[in-house]
Amino acid sequence: MKALFLSCTLKRSPEDSNSEALASVLKEAFAAEDVETETIRLVDLDIHPGVTSDEGDGDEWPRVHEALLESEILVVVTPTWVGRPSSVAQKMIERMDAMIAETDDDDRPVAYDRVAGVVVTGNEDGAHHVISEISGALGDIGYTIPGQAWTYWNKGPGPGDDYPDTDEGHDWSASTGRAAAQNLLTVARALSGGTMKAPPD
Amino acid sequence: MKALFLSCTLKRSPEDSNSEALASVLKEAFAAEDVETETIRLVDLDIHPGVTSDEGDGDEWPRVHEALLESEILVVVTPTWVGRPSSVAQKMIERMDAMIAETDDDDRPVAYDRVAGVVVTGNEDGAHHVISEISGALGDIGYTIPGQAWTYWNKGPGPGDDYPDTDEGHDWSASTGRAAAQNLLTVARALSGGTMKAPPD
Amino acid sequence: MKALFLSCTLKRSPEDSNSEALASVLKEAFAAEDVETETIRLVDLDIHPGVTSDEGDGDEWPRVHEALLESEILVVVTPTWVGRPSSVAQKMIERMDAMIAETDDDDRPVAYDRVAGVVVTGNEDGAHHVISEISGALGDIGYTIPGQAWTYWNKGPGPGDDYPDTDEGHDWSASTGRAAAQNLLTVARALSGGTMKAPPD
Amino acid sequence: MKALFLSCTLKRSPEDSNSEALASVLKEAFAAEDVETETIRLVDLDIHPGVTSDEGDGDEWPRVHEALLESEILVVVTPTWVGRPSSVAQKMIERMDAMIAETDDDDRPVAYDRVAGVVVTGNEDGAHHVISEISGALGDIGYTIPGQAWTYWNKGPGPGDDYPDTDEGHDWSASTGRAAAQNLLTVARALSGGTMKAPPD
Repeated sequence: MKALFLSCTLKRSPEDSNSEALASVLKEAFAAEDVETETIRLVDLDIHPGVTSDEGDGDEWPRVHEALLESEILVVVTPTWVGRPSSVAQKMIERMDAMIAETDDDDRPVAYDRVAGVVVTGNEDGAHHVISEISGALGDIGYTIPGQAWTYWNKGPGPGDDYPDTDEGHDWSASTGRAAAQNLLTVARALSGGTMKAPPD
Repeated sequence: MKALFLSCTLKRSPEDSNSEALASVLKEAFAAEDVETETIRLVDLDIHPGVTSDEGDGDEWPRVHEALLESEILVVVTPTWVGRPSSVAQKMIERMDAMIAETDDDDRPVAYDRVAGVVVTGNEDGAHHVISEISGALGDIGYTIPGQAWTYWNKGPGPGDDYPDTDEGHDWSASTGRAAAQNLLTVARALSGGTMKAPPD
Repeated sequence: MKALFLSCTLKRSPEDSNSEALASVLKEAFAAEDVETETIRLVDLDIHPGVTSDEGDGDEWPRVHEALLESEILVVVTPTWVGRPSSVAQKMIERMDAMIAETDDDDRPVAYDRVAGVVVTGNEDGAHHVISEISGALGDIGYTIPGQAWTYWNKGPGPGDDYPDTDEGHDWSASTGRAAAQNLLTVARALSGGTMKAPPD
Repeated sequence: MKALFLSCTLKRSPEDSNSEALASVLKEAFAAEDVETETIRLVDLDIHPGVTSDEGDGDEWPRVHEALLESEILVVVTPTWVGRPSSVAQKMIERMDAMIAETDDDDRPVAYDRVAGVVVTGNEDGAHHVISEISGALGDIGYTIPGQAWTYWNKGPGPGDDYPDTDEGHDWSASTGRAAAQNLLTVARALSGGTMKAPPD
C-alpha cells in the first residue's frame, strides 16, 4: 500500500509550504500503519500544459503519472487562492484527464480501486469549495472518495494569519486529518485486489 | 432608489437570523444615503416550488416578484449550510429564473440596470463559494454584480461560534459591508435611467 | 442491500420528472442484481426547513431519515436550475447535516460504509457542477463516493430540449448510468459489514 | 475604451484555440463600436507561479498587468477541463490577486470602474460553472460583472465534438456573445471617469 501526496503549492522548494505542513499529519498517520508515502511538489517540476500523459520533450509529468499508478492512495495538498484550488492543482487535474481513457489489463480505468483525499490551507475562506472541486474532478477520473477524507485549516473572516503563524484551530485540523488518513486507508484496503469491475457495455 | 433584502435564512420569524444581523450594516449604510430598504424573510412566506413567476393558488412569490421589479438594488442574505447557499436561496433563484424571459417596454430583460450583492454568515467555511454561486446565477438572469459587492462572516477551521457569539472579525465584516453598500449604490446610480440596451438579435 | 433514490425534482406527483426517467436506468441495473430500490419524491412530502433530523409537528423528514439509515446506497436524482442543484436537493443536504453528529453503536457517523451517487438532467449546461456540489456535501456527511458513480443528460449550448423530447445522447447517459450502478454496488459491497472505523480522537 | 482578451487555452501558438474562435464574435462587436481590442494568449508567455504582480527575473506577467491597467474591459477566454476553468485561467486569477491591494491616486482598488466577462468552450458540460468561478474571483478583485456578460459553446451529454467540428449551436453562442459585448461596453461606459469611490473605512 502506497500513499502519494501531490503538493500543489505555488512555492518552489526549499520554501516552506503551509499546506504541506498540515499534510504531515496524514503522513505520520500513514507511517504508523506501515503505508509508504511519497511527496511530489509539482511546481518544482517542468510540467507542460496539456491533457495527455506525456506532452513530449522535457515534460516531467510522466514520472508523476508513474507514481500515481504505483499508489493506491492519492492525497492532493493545495492552498486556497481567491477561494479556489491553486492553478497547480488544476494543471494536475488536466494532466490526469488522460487517465479516464487509460485502462488496465482487465479493461478497467486505471483509477479504479484507488482512493483520493484533499488537504487544504488558506489564509481565507474557501476550503470546502476546494475540496468539492478536486474531489469532484477525481471522481470523474475514476477515483473513489471515501467519506470524510479531507482536512483543512484557515481563519475567517477576511485575510488572516497563515497556518504556521498561530496555533488556533490546529487541533481540529489535525484530528480531522487523522480521521481522513484512516478513512482513506480503510477504503483503499477494502477496494484492493481488483474489486471494481470494467464498465458494462 | 430602493434596495430589497431577500433573507434566505432557514429560521422562521421571530427567531433571530445571524445573516440578517450582518445585513443590518448595509441597511444602515443605505439609509444614510436616503435609499429606501425593504426586507423579506422568504421562509415566512408560502413560496411554491417551480420556475415561473406565479405558481398559482396560495403561492406568495408574486409579491416578492413585484418587490424585485420595484428595486434597483437586490441584496441576497443567506447562511451557509454544508458549504453551500441555503435551499431558500436556491428556491429564490429558481423562481427568478422566469425573469430571464420577462422584458420591459423596450424589450430589455427586466433585470437590466439592476444590481445585486450578497451577505453571508456561517459557523464554518464556505462564504466565497456562496457568493460566487449566487452572483453567478443572478448574472445569468441579467443583474449586474458591482465589484466587491458582498460581505461575510464565519470562523474557521471546523464548526465554530455563530456571529452573535463573539465580536471576533465583526469589524472587518462591517467595514467590508459598508464598502459593498457603497459599490451597489454607485453602480445602481450609474446604470439608472435605461442604460442597458435590449440584446441585439 | 438497498438503494434509496431521493428525487429532488420541483414537480409534484403525478407530473413526470425528467431526472427520474433517467434514474430508471440505475434502478433496472440494481434490480438485475437483486438490490431492493425505493424512490421518494421529496417535493411530495412536507419537509420543514431546518438542520435537525426532526423539525417537529407535521415534518415528514423523519421517514426519509429512516429510509436513509436502511439503505447502503443513496442515489440523488436532481434537475439543474440556473446551473445548480435544485432547492429540493439543497434542502435534503441541510436535513442530512444532522447526520454528521449521529453515530451508531460503534461511535461511527451513521453515513460510514454507505455510498452515494448522482443522476442529473437539465435542458442546459451544469451537470458536472451539480454532481460535484452534491457529492462534496455528501462526502462531508460521511458518504463514500465511488469512482464514476453518476450519469447525466443535457444539451448545449443554451436552453434546449428536455430529456424525453429527443433520443439524442440517451445511449451515452444510459451506458454511463449502468456503470454508475455497478460502481455504487461494488463499493457498497466492499464496505459492508462495519468496514470503516470510528474516527480516532 | 479598450478591451483586453486574456486567452487561457492550454495550446501554444500557432495552434488553433476553440475558445478564441468563439471570442472573435465579441471582438468584431467591439470593433464595430470603435473599441480597441488586444488578445494575449497567456500560455505563450513565461508567467511565473505566484501572487504578486512581478515575480522577478524572466517573469512575463508584468506586461499583462500593464495591459490590464490600460483596459476598461476584460474578457477571459477559457476552455473547460474536467468541468472547470483551465489552469491557465486560475494562474491568471492568482497573479491578479495582488490587484486587490493596488490602488490608484484616489485610493481606489485599480479594478474599480472596470468590467469583465467570460467566453467558454468545451467538448463537454461545465460552462456555467466556469463562468461563475471566474466572475466570482474577478468580483473579489474589484471588477464589475455586467448582467449577461458571457457566452459559451459545448455539446452534451458526454464527450463530443469540438467547436469547429460542427455548426450546431453556433448561432445561439454568437448571438449571446454579441449581447455580452454590448453589455460589457454599456456598463464600462456608464462607469467610466472615476465613478466608483474609494472604500469607506
